[in-house]
This record gives sequence, structure tokens and C-alpha cells, in this order.
Amino acid sequence: MTTMRAERSAALMHGILEELQRYSAGGPGVTRLLYADEWAAAQQYLSERMAALGLAVRCDRVGNVYGRIEGTREAAPAVLTGSHIDTVRSGGAYDGAYGIAAGVAALDYLQRTYGPPVRPLEVVSFCEEEGSRFPLSYWGSGNVVGAYDVSEAPRHIDFAGVSMEDAMRRAGCGLDDQAPPARGDIGVFVEAHIEQGVTLERMNLDIGVVTAIVGQKRYIVKLIGEANHAGTTPMGMRRDPCAGAAEMIAALERMALEAGDPLVATVGRMELSPNTPNVIPGAVTFTIDVRHADGEALDRFGEALAETIHTIAERRGLGVELSLWVDTRPAPMHPKLYSALERICSEQGLSSRLMVSGAGHDAQMLQQVCPSAMIFVPSRLGVSHSPDEYSTPEALENGLQVLIAILYELAYEERLP
Amino acid sequence: MTTMRAERSAALMHGILEELQRYSAGGPGVTRLLYADEWAAAQQYLSERMAALGLAVRCDRVGNVYGRIEGTREAAPAVLTGSHIDTVRSGGAYDGAYGIAAGVAALDYLQRTYGPPVRPLEVVSFCEEEGSRFPLSYWGSGNVVGAYDVSEAPRHIDFAGVSMEDAMRRAGCGLDDQAPPARGDIGVFVEAHIEQGVTLERMNLDIGVVTAIVGQKRYIVKLIGEANHAGTTPMGMRRDPCAGAAEMIAALERMALEAGDPLVATVGRMELSPNTPNVIPGAVTFTIDVRHADGEALDRFGEALAETIHTIAERRGLGVELSLWVDTRPAPMHPKLYSALERICSEQGLSSRLMVSGAGHDAQMLQQVCPSAMIFVPSRLGVSHSPDEYSTPEALENGLQVLIAILYELAYEERLP
Repeated sequence: MTTMRAERSAALMHGILEELQRYSAGGPGVTRLLYADEWAAAQQYLSERMAALGLAVRCDRVGNVYGRIEGTREAAPAVLTGSHIDTVRSGGAYDGAYGIAAGVAALDYLQRTYGPPVRPLEVVSFCEEEGSRFPLSYWGSGNVVGAYDVSEAPRHIDFAGVSMEDAMRRAGCGLDDQAPPARGDIGVFVEAHIEQGVTLERMNLDIGVVTAIVGQKRYIVKLIGEANHAGTTPMGMRRDPCAGAAEMIAALERMALEAGDPLVATVGRMELSPNTPNVIPGAVTFTIDVRHADGEALDRFGEALAETIHTIAERRGLGVELSLWVDTRPAPMHPKLYSALERICSEQGLSSRLMVSGAGHDAQMLQQVCPSAMIFVPSRLGVSHSPDEYSTPEALENGLQVLIAILYELAYEERLP
Repeated sequence: MTTMRAERSAALMHGILEELQRYSAGGPGVTRLLYADEWAAAQQYLSERMAALGLAVRCDRVGNVYGRIEGTREAAPAVLTGSHIDTVRSGGAYDGAYGIAAGVAALDYLQRTYGPPVRPLEVVSFCEEEGSRFPLSYWGSGNVVGAYDVSEAPRHIDFAGVSMEDAMRRAGCGLDDQAPPARGDIGVFVEAHIEQGVTLERMNLDIGVVTAIVGQKRYIVKLIGEANHAGTTPMGMRRDPCAGAAEMIAALERMALEAGDPLVATVGRMELSPNTPNVIPGAVTFTIDVRHADGEALDRFGEALAETIHTIAERRGLGVELSLWVDTRPAPMHPKLYSALERICSEQGLSSRLMVSGAGHDAQMLQQVCPSAMIFVPSRLGVSHSPDEYSTPEALENGLQVLIAILYELAYEERLP
């Protein structure tokens, strides 16, 4: 990158990130839930910022905001970059926002440096990815790829009893004269994002090049035993679901370690009932979150897990209810794209590694309709979904540099996967 | 027992039990907390009931109510029976109340059948045992044996901010002209109580003869790991306190089974933080409740437990805080008394077994100052501290029959331990 222009791009990106964190519901960190007032103000700000940079701005019916540079080749499919504008409650300033800010800065740099691209170049601020307000996720990118339809909006109700349709209207979306969100003209998607994990930082790497987004299985396990007095019930007369859960969780960890990376298995939530020091619990409920980039390996692990749980429960005389409430398939990124990203990192003197994304991202929706790729930058201590979320300016600029390079190859050189 | 008199005694006992459960704060089961209005009304009812039966009634400064039959031998130490009038919140109708009702019925039977005893015979309704209102237990029997002093009352504050002193006054206790609770004139104590466990019912036995009340150690274990994203943190980069807790709880159960009866170890309460399905917990807190009738064996188990916890925590890189917040010694019942009870059961054609009490009782306070004994009757399904607490009329009458027989030997025949 030409130094002057690179400095301008970095400053533009940092400025947008700084500005965006001001659109928050208050409290620690950033809280910007779908269709909230601060959400609408943030999309309005981005629209104006993109327009001021000479991008053609468009907002679709569900509130996805696009900034576009027309291509010189007629009817060419678009090269799209971007990420989501919404946050979790008390989230950070980088999750989602970074991919948007980097995308705007990249388009600005490319336009100023090289003029109009051959293929149309777009940056998107997806309306929703986190699932923090309504009981669904990827509402923005899901509408783009046709996994959701805006007509579902009246059915989704938030924690305060507000329907998504009412929330949309209040935010100025959901109007008939707004463009339908589904698109058939996207040729390729590249998303820059913070890693939200510890791997890059611990390995001292600049860039993570994503090969796949993991599939997930999430279970709720309910074990039913017999609540009894902790003092008057001999060990041999107990049906203790807490002891059963402990045996299961220990077995689960062993199985996950044996399966090896990138499989991860986590028990994050657990509730004992009645949860009293001197009472043997009558019931224990815990969650299991399993992720893997290989769908078959994930299925095999899920089967082994279910068998282990049922075997232990049966031996202990515990009732068991095992429910699978999330079951998503792994989403592969495009090999030609991630190979190109590896090469670009190497050309730019940036250290990188191919890695699996353990978290979900909009790219997993987009890869259903077009070749997709993701660029990760390090997260300090791996912290995300927290006010403490942080990535250094250098880390963010490294990601921007790589994003600019891949978008140039895709939109100007038409090196397509 | 003479049949007519026995029928009258059984009816008296059942009548008192039925009447007592009407003194409750409302809600499911019986709630009769120390010094509450319903508590004061219950003690008043008992005072009147005992007086009507010809017992000399006395209420001491902390609210223990006694009914007494004078003995014929001057200055002889008293034979005392009874239990506590207070309950847990939403407790049952038998825990505590049974020992009082059986005691009143036993004294009535003995007086009517045999006239005045040689040694004074008393039944007591201890004011408090459960620790449900103020952060202490055995306030009634503890004041009798000198483990507590009524002068501490201003220091104890309930969940609503009321001091025990104010609560006492409101209940008509704590007055200077009331008798001090400490007594040096008790020669022997016998307490009838529901088992609150499953052993007698499962073994189809009529009576449990208690050899000792267990000592207890209660711990709070806090494990500090590193909260991280469940998807983006490889298994090998985790310090997961939930997996650590599972390993500890599984080890604890193995150790307890190896130690054998009557040792019991229970994890009844557990809290994960932040307790979210897709976040590796940053901290886990759980309780351990260990009980044994042998103080040295209890100490050895406590040491092994602490070593196991520290070893596992260290290997996993977890911070650990292990705090011992309850540490009571086992309380032996008197061998001559429990042998006599075994003999009595056999003479009366009742099946029985010697057993350890896994729960605490007033007898553990009284045994500090005089030979003490306990008679257990079966609890349906072992349930106690619950509105579902239940013992059959026959079971309660069996206990009454044994209580009458032992009191006769102690107070009329002066067969003393």
C-alpha cells in the first residue's frame, strides 16, 4: 500500500470503530441490539459515512446497509465484504464492527488508488448476527441467502414481548418500498473479524486464515435422581444426579481430548435442584456444546456422547433426558480463497496460519450461495462478547491490509475462485 | 402397655401432632420459625395442654417449655425427654414435633399408670434446633447445656434484619424474671425422632436405636479458571474449572464408597460463573458435606479430600479456595442406654437395629452434660424437611411404646446408665 493512502485508510477504519461504539444502549461495553434506537442510529451513521466517501448506499427491507462501487464489466457478480452491526449485551467494540469498518476503509482505499473495479465492490453492514434480542441468529445474512424471509418477522418476539415486525417498523425498516433482502448477484464474500479466541495471540501470529466454520451441536442433559438428606442416606442407597453428571463431564472431557483439535466440547451451564449443601440433589441439568469443522466427526462424537450419557445414567439408576437443540453443519470456506489469503499474508510479510473458526459468523450463511473467506486478527487474551474485547491498532491494520489485497485480486484482477 | 391406657396415649400423641401443625406461617407444609407468632402460639398451646394433663409447666428465658412430674426421691436428677418445636420453612409435621408429642403422651401414660416416679420426669419443647431463622442451630438445647448464652441474643440477626433479642421480646421471652435456661440437674436425656432417612423403611424395621450422631465437616470449594469462548478455545488451551470440579466430585464419590458406611459425602450445591452454555466457566463453586460417626475417620477423610482437591487443581492450573465452615465432632449416645433400648425393642416384639444418625439432633447437645439416647421411627421414603414428611401412626406408636418403657426404667426403676 502506498504509505499516505494506507495511513488514511487506517485512520478511517479506526475512526469508524471509535464512532460506532458511541451507539450503545448504555451500561458497560457496547449494547446495540437489533432494531433498537442505537442500532438505527448506527446504521444511519454508516449510511452517511459511506455516502460521504462516494459509495452508493442502499438499505434493504430488513435493515442491511450496503455501500457500493460500480464495476466496469456489466452484470458482473459483486465482490462483497463486511460483517454485522449488532452486538451482544455489554459486548465489545470489535465483534462485527471491525469487519464493517475495515470493509469501508478497504473500498475507500481501492477506489482512490485504482479507480473503479471491474466487478462491483460492496461493503455490507448486516443488521443482525448475534441472536441477542430475538430467538434467532444471522437474520441479516440469512435473509440475503434466503435462509430467512422477512415475512417471518411477526412471529419472532423479543424478551420484552415486542414482535420483530413492530421493532422493524420503529427502526424504519420492513417497508414495502424497501428492496427485498435476498440477492442472487453476489459472486464472492470476504469477512474480516476478530478471532475471539486465544490461538493467534498465544502463537504470536498476525493473521488467521479460516478454512471452515465449525458445525455445532448443543445439548441439554437433564438427570433425574432422588433428592435425599445428605446425612441420613447411605452412599449405597443414593441415586445422585450430581455424581452422575460429574462422571459424564469427566468422560466428555477425556473423549474430547482423545478426538483432538479442532473438536471442542464444553459444559458451560449447570443447575442443581434444590441446590442446597445438605441435600442430595434430585435433579441436575447441564448443557454440552460440541463443535467440529468435520461434520462426520461431529456426528460420530455426538453418537458416542449420547451413548456415554445413557450408559452412565442407566448404571446409576438415573432418569435422563438428552435434547439436541442446536445442530448446525460445518461451513467450509473456499480453498482457492484461503490459499490466496495465505499467499497474500506471506507476500506482505505477515505471519499466519490456517485455522478453523470455533465461533459462528455471517460467512457461514454466505458460503451457501457463493465462495466465501474469512480473515481473523488476534484478540487480546481471546476475550470477546465483553467490554474487555480488544485488538491492537496494528492487528486491525494487518487485517485491513490483507482485506484490501484480496479484494483487489477479486474485484480488479478478477482472479476468481 | 395396658390396652385402654395405650389407646389413650396414642390418641393424645396423634392429637398433639395434629394440633401443632396448625401453628404455621402459611404456605405448603409447616413453617414455624423461632420466636415467630405461630411459634409463640404453639408453645402456648403446649403449655396449656401439659398443664391440663397435670404437668407442672415452666418456660425458661429463651422459650424452652418444660412439663414436669415431681419425683419421690428428693434432689434426684431429672429424666428428660422431648425435642424441638421449630421447623424449617415448608417443613413437615413430624420433625421435632413427634419427640414432644410422644414425650407428653409418655409422661401422661406413666403418671396415670404408675403414679409419681422416683426421679423427676420432664418433657421439653426446645425452642430451636433447625437454624432456619437465625444463623445458628440448637439455640434451645445449646442454652440448656451452656453452649450458648442468652446474652448473645442481640448479636444474632435474621434474614429480615430483626435481632434475636427483639424477636425474643416480641414472643414474650428474654425477660429477667424468667428462669435462666442452663440446667445442672438433668440426669439423662432420651429423644424420640423420625429417622429422616431411608434405612429403616428399606430394611423394613420398626425402630432405629442410635449409637452416635455423626460429626460433620462442610466445605466450600471455589475453583478459579479462565472464562473463554466455548468455540474458539482449543481443549489444550483451557483452564476449565467445571471439568476440574467434575474430576473432584467423581474422586470424592469413589473415596466415600471406599471408606464405607457410615461415612457419607455429598455435593449438594454448585454454581458456575458465568453459567452460559457457550462460555467455558471462569469459576465454579461447590459445597462438600462429609459426615461420619468416628471423629478420627472423619478427620482422615477431610485430609484426603483436601489433598485430592489441591492435587487436581494444581495439575489443571486452577486456583482453589477450600474453606471448612462447619466442623462438628461426632456425639456418642450412651452404650448402656442404647443397649437397654435394643433389649426393650426385642422384649416388645419390635424389629430394630443400631444405627448412626446422619442428621444433627438436640441429643448431641444434651450428651455433653448427661447420658443420652435416641429412638428413631421410619420416615416414608426417607423424606423430611418437606411437606411430604410422613410416618405411619403405627410407626409413631411403636416409638412411643419404646419411649414409655425406657422412661419407666429410668425414672421409676432408677436403672441408670
